Parts: sequence; structure tokens; C-alpha cells
Amino acid sequence: MLVFIGMGLWDERDISLKGLEEARRADEVYIEFYTSKLIGTNLEKIENLLGREIKVLERSDLEENSRVLVREAKAKNVAILVPGDPMVATTHSALKLEAEREGVKTKIIHGASILSAVCGLTGLHNYRFGKSATVSYPYGKPSATPVNVVKANWSIDAHTLLYLDLHPEPMLIPTAVEILRKAGLENCFAVGIARAGSEEPAVKCDFLEELCQYDFGEGLHVIVVLAKTLHFMEYECLRTFASAPSALEKLVR
Amino acid sequence: MLVFIGMGLWDERDISLKGLEEARRADEVYIEFYTSKLIGTNLEKIENLLGREIKVLERSDLEENSRVLVREAKAKNVAILVPGDPMVATTHSALKLEAEREGVKTKIIHGASILSAVCGLTGLHNYRFGKSATVSYPYGKPSATPVNVVKANWSIDAHTLLYLDLHPEPMLIPTAVEILRKAGLENCFAVGIARAGSEEPAVKCDFLEELCQYDFGEGLHVIVVLAKTLHFMEYECLRTFASAPSALEKLVR
Repeated sequence: MLVFIGMGLWDERDISLKGLEEARRADEVYIEFYTSKLIGTNLEKIENLLGREIKVLERSDLEENSRVLVREAKAKNVAILVPGDPMVATTHSALKLEAEREGVKTKIIHGASILSAVCGLTGLHNYRFGKSATVSYPYGKPSATPVNVVKANWSIDAHTLLYLDLHPEPMLIPTAVEILRKAGLENCFAVGIARAGSEEPAVKCDFLEELCQYDFGEGLHVIVVLAKTLHFMEYECLRTFASAPSALEKLVR
Repeated sequence: MLVFIGMGLWDERDISLKGLEEARRADEVYIEFYTSKLIGTNLEKIENLLGREIKVLERSDLEENSRVLVREAKAKNVAILVPGDPMVATTHSALKLEAEREGVKTKIIHGASILSAVCGLTGLHNYRFGKSATVSYPYGKPSATPVNVVKANWSIDAHTLLYLDLHPEPMLIPTAVEILRKAGLENCFAVGIARAGSEEPAVKCDFLEELCQYDFGEGLHVIVVLAKTLHFMEYECLRTFASAPSALEKLVR
């Protein structure tokens, strides 16, 4: 059996009781910090909580060498600890697919994800979010993909959650804003969010280019680019939770 | 202080360690089953886990009488247990807004949400989901809203997560399919999902109208209406995780 266990957003205490039990009784426990990070903790603290050794998986263990994990899960109960909610990363669904095709039973213990957390932190309505995208470090020409996704979402009046690249190091909001502006995104409002799930998350709404002026502190960072209109409750929440400027009022329909 | 604690998807053991600690040390603990349900547990089991009494909030306590809760949270540490991830329901963001305006500190302990869980259960890519909507019981003329959202999402090639109405009782997939068909939705593929987060979730992909033929068992149920195209990995996952018919292959781009 191969069990994917969501670790939630911030530290080792974001795991569910069910996830903790499942990890403690597994034959082997792995963890991966490739698809996301848990900034508020470290391997030692997680091992202490579980009371056992945890092996760290690299990207190659999850992808081109995934058959090693799958083979092990045929004979034993293997648990993989994953930041956030497992399977939001496509790497995990590919691994789950390979396992099931090999006749290995799989299970998911869900954890909290940035996908839903942004609604609570910003007050933006979850049903108004459109497609999401990742802002990647530019190698050569800046990629237009996130900007195209924002524009597609604007065409149906939806917000856009933008993940920021994690490799080689977690991208911070000023870098992402610069990349988005170079790719042609301007004249819009956005919300920068840092450390979702921690005791001190930072949430700030302003014109996209102004977000560079604000100190969000340490990562992880994400950005929500707002739709072209806001529900009045979204506006009120952004004013209170995210110190949005009063100029935002013009978006209220 | 007012603390919103996400309970996750299925039973009392889906709460995080952090959420459990926070609930145990609060002065008062409330729970609400209005915005969603925890089918795999009941109040008594949750009270046993916490080792204390929990008061159940009705819709009116969260909405028109919310000032009572806010006033109490001025003087004490008040925790509200919420199925899923708090604030995905707009009721909670309105309550958080009212509290903060009254000078009451608020905090969110995030929990797993159906929003991210559907990705793991179906293998559909999270970045391809568009706006979501709720299929409500029809009173008189069937509401066109969910169908309009599906069509808007199709225009940007996105999937649609449809929540099913919970009141007066949790709607099941056959009823929702009937309502969607009457509102004009046809000729599309969809995935029915039951009991996300449980040991025995049901996941079935087929033509929307065919989902009525399948026994999904007890709730909660949701539906994902697929975009007009699929990534080949999404197709492969739906074949394996959701017994999708081979006719689905025509959507692979």
C-alpha cells in the first residue's frame, strides 16, 4: 500500500490525527520537499513527532525512479509525507497512477492546501477563482503563461491564484511582480500572501506594481491577481484583512 | 480572540494537531454543521476527542445574530469548529470581518477542503479548474447559474467543481444531474465524487447523464464537469481512478 499524507501548510503540527497515526504505523516513511516546503519546521522536528526515521525523497525518486517506490509499496506499507494536500502537484497523481496500474492499493490522507487557505486569508470568494498558474524563473524570454491565464480568467471575471517557483529557491513577491510586468501584466490589483497557515501570515492588497514596496517577510509567497470586479463583501474583507487602498472600490459591481 | 478551526473532510480525526490543541485550550468551543457536514462522525465523538462540551451553532447564530459570538470573543478565547477549511464558505469571512472591525483578533487553523481533495481523487490538474458553483434545489424555475459557470469555464477550457446543496438535506448526484439537464447542460463528461476523505471514496467518470446509473452510496456528493479537453495524464488517471469509458479519449488534446 502507498499512502500519501498531506502535511498542511506550515509546520509539523498541521498534520491531521489520521495522518499522524497512518505515518506511525507505516513500514517505511518518506517525505518530499520538492513540490512544496514546510517553512515552519524541519526534518528533525517531524521525525521527533513521529518517533521514527524519515527518508527524504528527491525529485528523481518521485519521477524517473518512481518504480523503486512502487515496488517497495507492493510488499510493505509505504507512507509519503507531502507538504499541503497531496496530488495538487501532478507529480503525485502520476505516482499514484503508476502504483494502481501495478496493483498497489493507494490512499490519500488530505491536508490543508494553499488553494483553499487563500480564501480565508483574503476574504475572496472561493467560487470566483479561475485557473491557477506558476510564475517561473525566466530563462531567456519571460514566459507568457501566467499572464495568459490571468487574461483568460479576466474574460470570465475570475481571480487568479499564482504559485511562485520553488527552484532553485522559493521566489519572493517582488521578483514575481517584476516577471509578470515584463510579460505584459499591468493596471491591475493583486494580493500578496506570505506564510499562509503560520501564526503571522502577511496579506496585502494593492496595485500589482505597488506590492514590491511592501515587506512580506520570509516565504512561502503567492499572489492572487484580482478579477475585474469584486463582490462588495470581497472589497470589505480586502480593506480589513489586506489593507487594500480605497481605490479598490471602483471594482465593486 | 475568535479562532476558526478547520475539521477537514470526513471524521473527527481529520482535525490537525494544531487545531486540536487550540480547541482544547479555548474558553468556549462551538461547532457548525450549516455550511458543510462531517458524515463520518457525530457531535459526541468530537466532544470525546476534545474532552469537553461543544455547543452547536445554527445558521442564525452565524449570520443575523453574529454579534453575540463577536461580543463573547471580545472577552474570551472562542473557537468555532468548521467542516472542511474555514472561510471557503462566505458566511465565515463575513463573521471574521465583523470580529476584526470590532477589534477582536481572529485566527484560522486550516483544514483539508474538497477544493483540493478533488484533484487527488480524480487526478485532474488543479491548475485547470475554473470557477465553482452550487447546484441548488429548484424552487420553481431551475436556476441557470451552475450551467452558466460551466459554460464560462468551457470558454477558457477549464473544469468546474459543482457543490451540491445541503439544505434541507444533502443533495445526491442523480438529483443534481437531473437539475443540470433540465437547465440545459448536456453532451459532456463529468466525474461524480462521494465521501472524499473517507476510507471508501467513490469516484466515477462518465457522460453526465450516465452518472445517474451509478450507485455512489452515501454523501456528501460533488460533481466535476470536465473541460472540453484533457491533458493525457488526466485522461489516464480518470481511466484508472474513475473507471472512465474509453470514449473519453476524444477529449485528449
